[in-house]
Amino acid sequence: MDPSSDAAPGQETLATTSEFGLIEQITQPLVMSPAVSVGPGDDAAVYLVNGSAVTSTDLLVEGVHFKREWSTAEQVGRKAVAVNVADLEAMGARPVAMVVALGAPGELATSWVREFSTGVRSEAEAAGIVLVGGDTTAARDITVCITVIGETAGRTPVLRSGAASGQVVAVRGRLGWAAAGLAALGRGFRSPRAAVDAQRCPQPPYGAGREAAEAGATAMIDVSDGLLADLGHIARASGMVIDLDSARVEVDEPVATVAAALGSDPLELVLGGGEDHALAACFEVGDVPDGWQVLGRVREPEQDEEVGVLVDGRVWQGQQGWQHFRG
Amino acid sequence: MDPSSDAAPGQETLATTSEFGLIEQITQPLVMSPAVSVGPGDDAAVYLVNGSAVTSTDLLVEGVHFKREWSTAEQVGRKAVAVNVADLEAMGARPVAMVVALGAPGELATSWVREFSTGVRSEAEAAGIVLVGGDTTAARDITVCITVIGETAGRTPVLRSGAASGQVVAVRGRLGWAAAGLAALGRGFRSPRAAVDAQRCPQPPYGAGREAAEAGATAMIDVSDGLLADLGHIARASGMVIDLDSARVEVDEPVATVAAALGSDPLELVLGGGEDHALAACFEVGDVPDGWQVLGRVREPEQDEEVGVLVDGRVWQGQQGWQHFRG
Repeated sequence: MDPSSDAAPGQETLATTSEFGLIEQITQPLVMSPAVSVGPGDDAAVYLVNGSAVTSTDLLVEGVHFKREWSTAEQVGRKAVAVNVADLEAMGARPVAMVVALGAPGELATSWVREFSTGVRSEAEAAGIVLVGGDTTAARDITVCITVIGETAGRTPVLRSGAASGQVVAVRGRLGWAAAGLAALGRGFRSPRAAVDAQRCPQPPYGAGREAAEAGATAMIDVSDGLLADLGHIARASGMVIDLDSARVEVDEPVATVAAALGSDPLELVLGGGEDHALAACFEVGDVPDGWQVLGRVREPEQDEEVGVLVDGRVWQGQQGWQHFRG
Repeated sequence: MDPSSDAAPGQETLATTSEFGLIEQITQPLVMSPAVSVGPGDDAAVYLVNGSAVTSTDLLVEGVHFKREWSTAEQVGRKAVAVNVADLEAMGARPVAMVVALGAPGELATSWVREFSTGVRSEAEAAGIVLVGGDTTAARDITVCITVIGETAGRTPVLRSGAASGQVVAVRGRLGWAAAGLAALGRGFRSPRAAVDAQRCPQPPYGAGREAAEAGATAMIDVSDGLLADLGHIARASGMVIDLDSARVEVDEPVATVAAALGSDPLELVLGGGEDHALAACFEVGDVPDGWQVLGRVREPEQDEEVGVLVDGRVWQGQQGWQHFRG
């Protein structure tokens, strides 16, 4: 027992909470799954995987991926889970288990960690994944690293390299919302609320990746850096040109509102904005599942033409994505 | 292509290296394994797991777990892998795949990341695990999060809760070396070299966890916080008393040297020192494999006796382990 942890509840910080107490804050109470035979509390977790295992990891750092002034602890927890599970969706995999590592300064209120854990758990429930373990440590900035493990469960993983000539490109999920929210927050606004909330926590289309895989998607990606940047990964991995039809690109209301307020081109937000974690995939014509929006086509590059992404047959002149280490 | 990345090689920093270039520094060249069907470069990695999956994660932060003045980049890379794989060993699992997330400031020399990657890869090879993916991002402090996935491969995972009355407790690997190295470094010494190197990078006894599981170990733990602290986890999880015989505890030469120089009790370093990542396990008498050193026994608590760890029948009065968030 920690004699200094009897501080007033509102005053409790990580420095007055033992490491083991903190781990309990994060891992309890857990919804367990029949697949999990050993959960948090041992050296490692043990769980069943049906088919091959599928794994992705993401590191979120305060001041880079979120700000405590802009996001609640719960939103940070939700976002950390969402951005990871979106990568499993983009492979057509079923989420199974995840581990959460948290670094935080000793002066952080323990209540922040409790609310963060609430966010982690509620998003995990929405995504259908089970928290099986983690790590906590001291750090100057709040640092969250989540690793997710999924299973192929009889489906062939959908890679970036499978786009073929004659296919259509379709998307499911939000585009431009998080970028619109970031632009609003960056100018000191707290509205439109839908855009601002989308920046604080994305809403990936859970389950849509598996549906796409079953419908016959041959290439798929999580739209994290921006639609053009991420379709560029598919185009290059597949040796193809992807040509988007701007007339088919829908601009959702919160994105239009921010673009109008800023006097900027809404297409810039939709095509270049990252962090919404929509899914983009390539299908044979006729295979596109309900709820997916066709935006363009895949074709072979012509002689001497570079592979990549075009908009209405031309190279797009705006921002194509993020560079994480630039100032 | 990044036009600013043609800086002189010695001057290159992360701010002048594109994120994708940086990921390549870390992930190429990779030794692949037949179990891995999708390696780095897609949304997630895909690999086979034989039996149940076993997972652990560890977050290492500059200034908390390592200092750039004390450790080379290669040592930091090696340590990050070693501390994680030790957790798989402690379950009796076979290492399969790992993902590495790296946060770093833009002004960090790209050469640091290259050397870090060399350390990650060489330790992974020693441990028999394959790097299948990762993430990179900006961060104020160098931050490394490694998650490892192992497989049970027909063996029952060895938990902390399986210690039984009448068994012996045995250890394999170094005890007190890293703590001795930390004490030396903290007083400005760079010797004894063996202890200082042990602090910079532990040497877990790779493969010994699986051998222990096959020999019949019923409880096992990775000694990361200190022998008494970690045996305490086994004692509490199993509802047992573990009594160590101090006459059986060997003090290795580098530990004895540091203790003599500091005028302190070497047993304090051996019983209380963390970060060596030895293995401690409980076996029936006669089941202890070669190379393991028997240090004590497991017994039922007497009436009104608390479960926990004793040394020569008494509660040890020294430091029992680490508290990560204390000043």
